[in-house]
Amino acid sequence: MGSSTDRLNMADVAALAGVSKATVSRVLSGAPGVSDATRARIKALVKDLSYVVSPDAARLSRGSTGRVAVVMPRTTTWFYGAVLSGALSVLRPAGLDALVYQVADDAESRGFFADLPVQRQVDAVIVVAFPVSDFERRQLDLLGVPVVVAGGALPGQAHVRIDDAAAARQAVTHLLELGHSRIAMINAAVPAEWPYAPPVDRLRGYRTALEEAGPGFDPRLVVDVPWSTAMGAEGMDRLLRVPRRPTAVFAFCDEVAMGALRSLRRAGIVVPEDMSVIGIDDHPMADLWDLTTVRQPVEEQGVRAARMALALLGGSAPADRHPVLPTELIIRGTTAASA
Amino acid sequence: MGSSTDRLNMADVAALAGVSKATVSRVLSGAPGVSDATRARIKALVKDLSYVVSPDAARLSRGSTGRVAVVMPRTTTWFYGAVLSGALSVLRPAGLDALVYQVADDAESRGFFADLPVQRQVDAVIVVAFPVSDFERRQLDLLGVPVVVAGGALPGQAHVRIDDAAAARQAVTHLLELGHSRIAMINAAVPAEWPYAPPVDRLRGYRTALEEAGPGFDPRLVVDVPWSTAMGAEGMDRLLRVPRRPTAVFAFCDEVAMGALRSLRRAGIVVPEDMSVIGIDDHPMADLWDLTTVRQPVEEQGVRAARMALALLGGSAPADRHPVLPTELIIRGTTAASA
Repeated sequence: MGSSTDRLNMADVAALAGVSKATVSRVLSGAPGVSDATRARIKALVKDLSYVVSPDAARLSRGSTGRVAVVMPRTTTWFYGAVLSGALSVLRPAGLDALVYQVADDAESRGFFADLPVQRQVDAVIVVAFPVSDFERRQLDLLGVPVVVAGGALPGQAHVRIDDAAAARQAVTHLLELGHSRIAMINAAVPAEWPYAPPVDRLRGYRTALEEAGPGFDPRLVVDVPWSTAMGAEGMDRLLRVPRRPTAVFAFCDEVAMGALRSLRRAGIVVPEDMSVIGIDDHPMADLWDLTTVRQPVEEQGVRAARMALALLGGSAPADRHPVLPTELIIRGTTAASA
Repeated sequence: MGSSTDRLNMADVAALAGVSKATVSRVLSGAPGVSDATRARIKALVKDLSYVVSPDAARLSRGSTGRVAVVMPRTTTWFYGAVLSGALSVLRPAGLDALVYQVADDAESRGFFADLPVQRQVDAVIVVAFPVSDFERRQLDLLGVPVVVAGGALPGQAHVRIDDAAAARQAVTHLLELGHSRIAMINAAVPAEWPYAPPVDRLRGYRTALEEAGPGFDPRLVVDVPWSTAMGAEGMDRLLRVPRRPTAVFAFCDEVAMGALRSLRRAGIVVPEDMSVIGIDDHPMADLWDLTTVRQPVEEQGVRAARMALALLGGSAPADRHPVLPTELIIRGTTAASA
């Protein structure tokens, strides 16, 4: 590392002092042929540049930062940690550091995106699975660096995701094949003004599967809850008050499904005998809950997003700008034939 | 932001060109009194500096980076995500960005710490709860920036943590008060050469509580497992093969306890009637498992670590360099009186 940094700095010093690299070299090696004034000025400059962070100085002279921003609504949920882990596993070996930004609410998000173009601190941005407003999208465009979305999509930007509608169909088709006809859905609620595709697409997959297979779509069997485990329990409680109770529940994700399982246990409803439950994710704890689910590759979405960012940084368009990763039905103990 | 950046850059230009700020100002405003050669040189320099990332250039001239490194073994576990979330909530409002490094294994860790002093890319380092070798400790010292540990401790460095021995005593004392005497422990295994305090301290708390209360310490009732939920299940399986089965289990953390609960359910052993289980953490899913636990404040450890880093960056010693945060017994449904 040392020597290449030194070489870069010598070019920097020469450029900044308005002299040739040969002159800088003569000063540093103590060779004659340089005026005392120039010698003193260059020595002072070298001292300054040694004091500052060398890799940054070198990168600044190339116009790049060596950093990628990873933006997510929270770092405490498994999904986001796993995408981050995947992205880091690609960025680090490529010599890129990750600046992580958590934008937890509207105000924080607005502030972050307002500052983003001014800061110009990154070579690329990876946005992880959250609703992006029109304002935020414009700010990302202003940045003038590659933007890649993991676990979602933004018009005009590269992205990697699963086919959410197809994943929902996999889940609901499994329940239909078990003989269920009253199949409810606990969905994640999103603000209408922020287009966030997964809840919309999963609802569409759920609806299509029901309509095509015969039982049809009953809006009273769909409850929307803010995405959290606790709210999965509340969503289940609401479904238990519906006249003609459903016999199976498709949850937006595994964490919501686990909340639903908790609620069912408290209500004394036996799973899977009295109620089948299925989620999406294959969360690391799904196995502990014996939860049937549709597995999505999560770390892999971080890996693929980071690889696309690297390709875009290298000036080459990724072979596929919108890869869709496959999902897989994982049958465990929370689903069974309809009684 | 624009105007202060401009001002800083003018000082930078003056310093780097070896002229006064008045000269730079004259050139930029088109005023006379500057030679054509100097004028051309300064204009070229201004163009260069406008091209580079302005906030970085400004920070470089002050010798700071505006960034803090947060180093953790993995980003996918709730504990680390929560500490990171807490740290980000303090760093962002202070105008500091977080570079997140995941050092998952020995090789990665060694590589990261070997490069760290050379890179000098950060103003401070927050190390989150993992074993740090002597080599790594020396590298951190070489960095010459403030180092703060969250969820652990390093000789000579500021840290924030809980009292792990006291937390273990809280858990075991609860089981003793319920009348249990054969109390097992599923502990996290750590390599002998890497001093990582929590498993050692929690084992000590467990042992002390048992020795002081009468039943004494039986090493056959302690199993070590690598820390993961799946291994919690394996640890429980091993305990079920011990002659004279225990009636209660203290798990290193909630995720290990959840693995143990899974194993017990599969073995047909009813919790809490036939076996009590307690963990440490109050993991967001502990409530869903109805798990009795000793709560530790996790995001708060990230908050406090970041605040100490800010204090050290500001040149002031934190009032308390080694705060110990309180833990609290949370009684739920997995513990009951001994049969």
